[in-house]
Amino acid sequence: MAQYGVKVVVPIDLTKKPWEQKHPLHNRWHPDIPPVAEVEVGELFRVEMVDFSGGRITQDYSAEDIKHADPSIVHYLSGPIRVLDKDGIPAKPGDLLVVEICNLGPLPGDEWGFTASFDRENGGGFLTDHFPSATKAIWYFEGIFAYSPHIPGVRFPGLTHPGIIGTAPSMELLNIWNERERELEKNGHQTLKLCEVLHSRPLANLPTTKGCLLGKIPVGTAGWETIAKEAARTIPGRENGGNCDIKNLSRGSKIYLPVFVEGANFSTGDMHFSQGDGEIAFCGAIEMSGFLELKCEIIRGGMKEYLTPMGPTPLHVNPIFEIGPVEPRFSEWLVFEGISVDESGRQHYLDASVAYKRAVLNAIDYLSKFGYSKEQVYLLLSCCPCEGRISGIVDSPNALATLAIPTAIFDQDIRPKIGKVPVGPRLVRKPDVLRCTYDGNLPTTKNPAASM
Amino acid sequence: MAQYGVKVVVPIDLTKKPWEQKHPLHNRWHPDIPPVAEVEVGELFRVEMVDFSGGRITQDYSAEDIKHADPSIVHYLSGPIRVLDKDGIPAKPGDLLVVEICNLGPLPGDEWGFTASFDRENGGGFLTDHFPSATKAIWYFEGIFAYSPHIPGVRFPGLTHPGIIGTAPSMELLNIWNERERELEKNGHQTLKLCEVLHSRPLANLPTTKGCLLGKIPVGTAGWETIAKEAARTIPGRENGGNCDIKNLSRGSKIYLPVFVEGANFSTGDMHFSQGDGEIAFCGAIEMSGFLELKCEIIRGGMKEYLTPMGPTPLHVNPIFEIGPVEPRFSEWLVFEGISVDESGRQHYLDASVAYKRAVLNAIDYLSKFGYSKEQVYLLLSCCPCEGRISGIVDSPNALATLAIPTAIFDQDIRPKIGKVPVGPRLVRKPDVLRCTYDGNLPTTKNPAASM
Amino acid sequence: MAQYGVKVVVPIDLTKKPWEQKHPLHNRWHPDIPPVAEVEVGELFRVEMVDFSGGRITQDYSAEDIKHADPSIVHYLSGPIRVLDKDGIPAKPGDLLVVEICNLGPLPGDEWGFTASFDRENGGGFLTDHFPSATKAIWYFEGIFAYSPHIPGVRFPGLTHPGIIGTAPSMELLNIWNERERELEKNGHQTLKLCEVLHSRPLANLPTTKGCLLGKIPVGTAGWETIAKEAARTIPGRENGGNCDIKNLSRGSKIYLPVFVEGANFSTGDMHFSQGDGEIAFCGAIEMSGFLELKCEIIRGGMKEYLTPMGPTPLHVNPIFEIGPVEPRFSEWLVFEGISVDESGRQHYLDASVAYKRAVLNAIDYLSKFGYSKEQVYLLLSCCPCEGRISGIVDSPNALATLAIPTAIFDQDIRPKIGKVPVGPRLVRKPDVLRCTYDGNLPTTKNPAASM
Amino acid sequence: MAQYGVKVVVPIDLTKKPWEQKHPLHNRWHPDIPPVAEVEVGELFRVEMVDFSGGRITQDYSAEDIKHADPSIVHYLSGPIRVLDKDGIPAKPGDLLVVEICNLGPLPGDEWGFTASFDRENGGGFLTDHFPSATKAIWYFEGIFAYSPHIPGVRFPGLTHPGIIGTAPSMELLNIWNERERELEKNGHQTLKLCEVLHSRPLANLPTTKGCLLGKIPVGTAGWETIAKEAARTIPGRENGGNCDIKNLSRGSKIYLPVFVEGANFSTGDMHFSQGDGEIAFCGAIEMSGFLELKCEIIRGGMKEYLTPMGPTPLHVNPIFEIGPVEPRFSEWLVFEGISVDESGRQHYLDASVAYKRAVLNAIDYLSKFGYSKEQVYLLLSCCPCEGRISGIVDSPNALATLAIPTAIFDQDIRPKIGKVPVGPRLVRKPDVLRCTYDGNLPTTKNPAASM
Repeated sequence: MAQYGVKVVVPIDLTKKPWEQKHPLHNRWHPDIPPVAEVEVGELFRVEMVDFSGGRITQDYSAEDIKHADPSIVHYLSGPIRVLDKDGIPAKPGDLLVVEICNLGPLPGDEWGFTASFDRENGGGFLTDHFPSATKAIWYFEGIFAYSPHIPGVRFPGLTHPGIIGTAPSMELLNIWNERERELEKNGHQTLKLCEVLHSRPLANLPTTKGCLLGKIPVGTAGWETIAKEAARTIPGRENGGNCDIKNLSRGSKIYLPVFVEGANFSTGDMHFSQGDGEIAFCGAIEMSGFLELKCEIIRGGMKEYLTPMGPTPLHVNPIFEIGPVEPRFSEWLVFEGISVDESGRQHYLDASVAYKRAVLNAIDYLSKFGYSKEQVYLLLSCCPCEGRISGIVDSPNALATLAIPTAIFDQDIRPKIGKVPVGPRLVRKPDVLRCTYDGNLPTTKNPAASM
Repeated sequence: MAQYGVKVVVPIDLTKKPWEQKHPLHNRWHPDIPPVAEVEVGELFRVEMVDFSGGRITQDYSAEDIKHADPSIVHYLSGPIRVLDKDGIPAKPGDLLVVEICNLGPLPGDEWGFTASFDRENGGGFLTDHFPSATKAIWYFEGIFAYSPHIPGVRFPGLTHPGIIGTAPSMELLNIWNERERELEKNGHQTLKLCEVLHSRPLANLPTTKGCLLGKIPVGTAGWETIAKEAARTIPGRENGGNCDIKNLSRGSKIYLPVFVEGANFSTGDMHFSQGDGEIAFCGAIEMSGFLELKCEIIRGGMKEYLTPMGPTPLHVNPIFEIGPVEPRFSEWLVFEGISVDESGRQHYLDASVAYKRAVLNAIDYLSKFGYSKEQVYLLLSCCPCEGRISGIVDSPNALATLAIPTAIFDQDIRPKIGKVPVGPRLVRKPDVLRCTYDGNLPTTKNPAASM
Repeated sequence: MAQYGVKVVVPIDLTKKPWEQKHPLHNRWHPDIPPVAEVEVGELFRVEMVDFSGGRITQDYSAEDIKHADPSIVHYLSGPIRVLDKDGIPAKPGDLLVVEICNLGPLPGDEWGFTASFDRENGGGFLTDHFPSATKAIWYFEGIFAYSPHIPGVRFPGLTHPGIIGTAPSMELLNIWNERERELEKNGHQTLKLCEVLHSRPLANLPTTKGCLLGKIPVGTAGWETIAKEAARTIPGRENGGNCDIKNLSRGSKIYLPVFVEGANFSTGDMHFSQGDGEIAFCGAIEMSGFLELKCEIIRGGMKEYLTPMGPTPLHVNPIFEIGPVEPRFSEWLVFEGISVDESGRQHYLDASVAYKRAVLNAIDYLSKFGYSKEQVYLLLSCCPCEGRISGIVDSPNALATLAIPTAIFDQDIRPKIGKVPVGPRLVRKPDVLRCTYDGNLPTTKNPAASM
Repeated sequence: MAQYGVKVVVPIDLTKKPWEQKHPLHNRWHPDIPPVAEVEVGELFRVEMVDFSGGRITQDYSAEDIKHADPSIVHYLSGPIRVLDKDGIPAKPGDLLVVEICNLGPLPGDEWGFTASFDRENGGGFLTDHFPSATKAIWYFEGIFAYSPHIPGVRFPGLTHPGIIGTAPSMELLNIWNERERELEKNGHQTLKLCEVLHSRPLANLPTTKGCLLGKIPVGTAGWETIAKEAARTIPGRENGGNCDIKNLSRGSKIYLPVFVEGANFSTGDMHFSQGDGEIAFCGAIEMSGFLELKCEIIRGGMKEYLTPMGPTPLHVNPIFEIGPVEPRFSEWLVFEGISVDESGRQHYLDASVAYKRAVLNAIDYLSKFGYSKEQVYLLLSCCPCEGRISGIVDSPNALATLAIPTAIFDQDIRPKIGKVPVGPRLVRKPDVLRCTYDGNLPTTKNPAASM
């Protein structure tokens, strides 16, 4: 008789802190973080994980925890997990690691999540110049569906996925990361003008010992200090995958990750019950604890075979993936367009980020006519299964981005109506999202047309 | 008995030039271009159109016509069409014009199209720094399918759509356009650094009398000269819709266009048999002549009701639309990721354009391993029904874009294989795309890793 | 330069009768009906066709033409078309003929259709014991959409397809058909009891010279008489394909037809703008004239290779097909169940026909609560893109069939509502379908519960 | 702070027998089986269940348990569950009970299932005259996917659903069932000829005390005896829902069940990891233990409002349902046709059951050419997500049924190929399904063409 069932390789006890777990978590990328578990190709195994904040963001109906969130501790990851072939030979640099997501979901007994936007002084989000306050909404899960008491009138099936899945970088790759991000942090404000409308936020998050957690490496040792000073932060996605925040890495998808160190040593975390393309509010998916059921294969030499590097070194590659067969299905979409003209009316050159910002702002204003507060829509578009597309990227000077929203998630018909022009707000959606005051003094982006 | 059938309001005779048509075409946006036809809400009408070049790009198996294409003449549009309600009262500024695309397709007898990339000195495309030469592929249609002798091994159903549909701007809006684009043209290179990797191309295309065609306004008259000098070029999409190049504006979709002048005076053109998100090669859809069968409604006051302006004036709005029910359906997708690190390894800040460029480059290199030339893939990804998404836009400093390609369009399995690593190019796809030499002296972007 | 465009092999002139067409039509299956056209594998060709009645059913707002329709003349087919390979060698018995439907649609200028139920004395329909009168609804097409003044409140995209596509039978196969159908006609009422609730209709339609049309064979000749006496009627689908009425044989589908005579000699007709599974009203699709754009391949010896016969001879096979990529897409369905208990409460044994009848009756009664007449719903479910499924066929004694209706085709929300129980009919849908009196004296099936 | 999480109302301990469970199970329908749990509208609750056989069919690699299965004990159901509104008032006869399936799946730790066909003397299946032996295949689950060592070369995502969900019948309804099924059992063979090709199987399963389990009612009491003698067997679906075996009752679907007794008292069981339309092998889904997470609503008076009875009493109704948003998505289907001509060549009249039998036989023979045994395909088509449709039900004398199979579940391309006719079996799929000898002496249906 064959074996079946899943081997739990990283269990999580939600009553414990990230560093107290059986397999202590880590929140940095570094080749020297030792693996906490080993799996063989072909076997089904389970990795559990805390939410990205390790429980610091709570179910309380208050956004204070968001306002004062400590960015140095994100994201708590489960792993690294070392992958061997059937003969016990580990994955090697130059291989491709194939990770199939056979299943995933919230941790049993913890079926809730949160969507939030950070305070502008504390990380902000895509629209932080419009919405500088910390806000939060709590979501509860009913099986495949999520609903929020703070955004009444919507309910939708989750396209659940891990925000982060990635292999450990080699020292060489780590150095590349640190150098280029240091360069940006140093010279960015001077040289990178085009997206200036976006960069009221920190340009990069460089290594820091503050908040650093390194798995099995004991705090206070010399080794810890050395690694902590050079280990990369987990915020951006990079060549190893990492915090890609791709909503389609869901059930049945297959990810092809480059291998940079022996064993591949992949880690995962930052589970999302659902997320919209862009994850615009930054803390913007429905963040939760969760589990993954995975199966690995190794394509020997596959990194060289399949991934052409693009950049100064053979390490400048990106993962590829296949989409799974059970994504939620919607047939009707209302779509908002945005062009690369900013809120001041200024023309930008083929800037898809500005165009997408504009599309999102258009959608927020539109939906707010249906009784939602703008903050409700901001969080909603950050976490519901909406699609953000680069529709045109060549028609100088305007990039054109679109944001497609499935109409079925609303309990009202949100399409424009012929002949029945609705007058003013229709339904007041109360209560509103939880929110804090913004105490900083950065200017808010004004919409000059708003008062007309 | 009820009426049925479609009223042809703009017929096209393909043996004639754009200015010889029964309803002469135009290639500029201006409020004073007089309407050539009138339609009533609720009636089904047909608008025919030439391809964007008005027949200058031919079926010849040569890319010379692309290399020497005259950018001043794009795009030849059909219209303007004036829209009245059932009582004969025209659409008015502040209304929303609802245009339903009931059907569309190539013009009977003209079932072919072309995809091309311009020479770098002559408009270029998204990847012109990699592919500076003019290239061209001819496509033939078999009903819903297209195939090309120049890109063997692929065949796919078209997601046919007009690249351009838009209402006439008011003088006030036209002035806004001209000012902001002039400002970019003037100061862009100094101030807009972030997307500098993209802007080896012209920053904007300002009004010019060269190549100008203004419909019923006779050339050589004073009126013509005045208008030609201030009429906006049709290249970018703007507040009025225009050259949005949104692949999903296909059968059954409904577009809500703002009305800026009495009658709405909408025009349409630049038919695409198929296009990928981004239309990366610029002349990059499967360009063709074609027809639209349309039905209009007017939502009185709907522009104010539904479209919140975002910018200095009430005119700073964008259209919205609903997706139709008969888009080609694919269930399996291979997806490429890109982050905002450029080919030199330099870190950019949350720049979705750079991230998308990277995703496209990754896809081109990947597919070229399956026997295609890179130029074949460049044109293919420009015109096949692939999806470009802004997956992450908040994880500083990396924006993350994805490019999803339906695997069913290929006659081979393009997914990475476990255990059977293919060695070298599999099938040589001959003949290749048509191409010209690049005679300019702008430097090509090198991929430093390419020779490793 | 390559060739493109479509070769018209069977043109139709709608001002002429079926026998006056350039390539005269036929309405019987017989190996000796000579081909009217020849095509080569790989070439794109166009076949035009009249509606099944050859124009006898008109656009008039009256059901009289339906009531007095002549069943002996159905269906007027275009063809036969002889298929050759690239070397000019015809398809041979034992081959498989692959027919790809590249495109199809109504004939230009004739964009309307009708859905009807015959009088019970004249062919009836699936529910003729409930609805014995002749009824008719006219539909008008707006591109991909159809609407009817006689069934207000619905509009839907067509899943257009030919009701009939089939190869010519060999004499041996023809004899098999005639024998088994004659046997049924003779002994059916005595021996075939289970579906007795259905068979108030004619059991079979045997060969008859009345109304017979045989293409190029001149009427009045001896040959004509001989063939007319033995040529099979076109009403049922059979081993050669024929009147399969499969709604999914639409754009992009590929049909694999067995070849029984040299050249394959396939014919096609009975175009449907749209049809629901079962085509319950019999004259039940949206019947229209139309065109097909086709491409053929020959799989030599493929009939033996791929189609295992099931029955007394190697000719007892059935076609197979692949579904195309552009069917209308719906995500929300309301589904009705039926079990094999008839209207009198009597239990039948695993009878999917009875179960489906019950599911359809349930759906009609349900939808009639939303303001439609039952006759409107009967015709609607016959022609809209609803799906009829055999959900359970083993749970003795009940077969269970389901009828799934896409909710998006209605202009109101037809789902049951919590908390808001609607009282009585909501909207009166006027005008109703066109209908005649039923002058026969067969008893109607009563629903004993109807008056409760 | 809001409540979240799910209330377990019926837990299952897989180490215990059905009658030893905390809430003892039942395997009959009767109004007097007392509820084991109570739920309130709006709350999320969990119902666990054993597999239909209560563990009698095991993981052993032998079909002996199938051959000697005891049909009197099926199906072990969890419940009845009594439903109250927010005010504590129970559902009442005449109401509609809305059950939303928020989630479902296998019981943790028990991630396997089986598909089987019974011996012809012991229940048989849809094709028992072709496949009289008991056969069995074991499936193992990898998250959303299932694979079987006994049917190598296929793997597919499950469309998981409860085979049975139904409300308790009233005494009046129970009497109707028993009468009509008794009548069939008594007179069926004489009067119901049409489906005779199917009815080598038992016509009905009448009440019997053998194997009867009645939940909380103690065995051996007078009450038990009385109820056991009249309680309906669970095999067929009926007016109360019950064993509908509808594969689409999956995640996110909403079922509207008629209420016949106070509290609704609904029960559920017979979980299927996956099933094809028809569940042709009878024990034919991937049978497993499992859990449901449900939410109920009550539509007061909704049975009368929405469900028109069709039959002698107001109880002659059927449930309706809505399909959920996360069904597995396939875009490519190979479809087999069947007409109502049986294996002997005999013509049947509009018999969809015969037509579907023919379509299934055609598919089995076709797929067996690709290296599978016919028994492997029989079980595969019984449990994979294939669709069985009634395509034509009016074209006398042939009903036409279709069976659509998603091609993506195979590890080889199963479509017919142009130019490359495969010769003979391609891959031998070993091991085969588990099977027993058939020791009965009923004749097998021969396919006369098989030896040609």
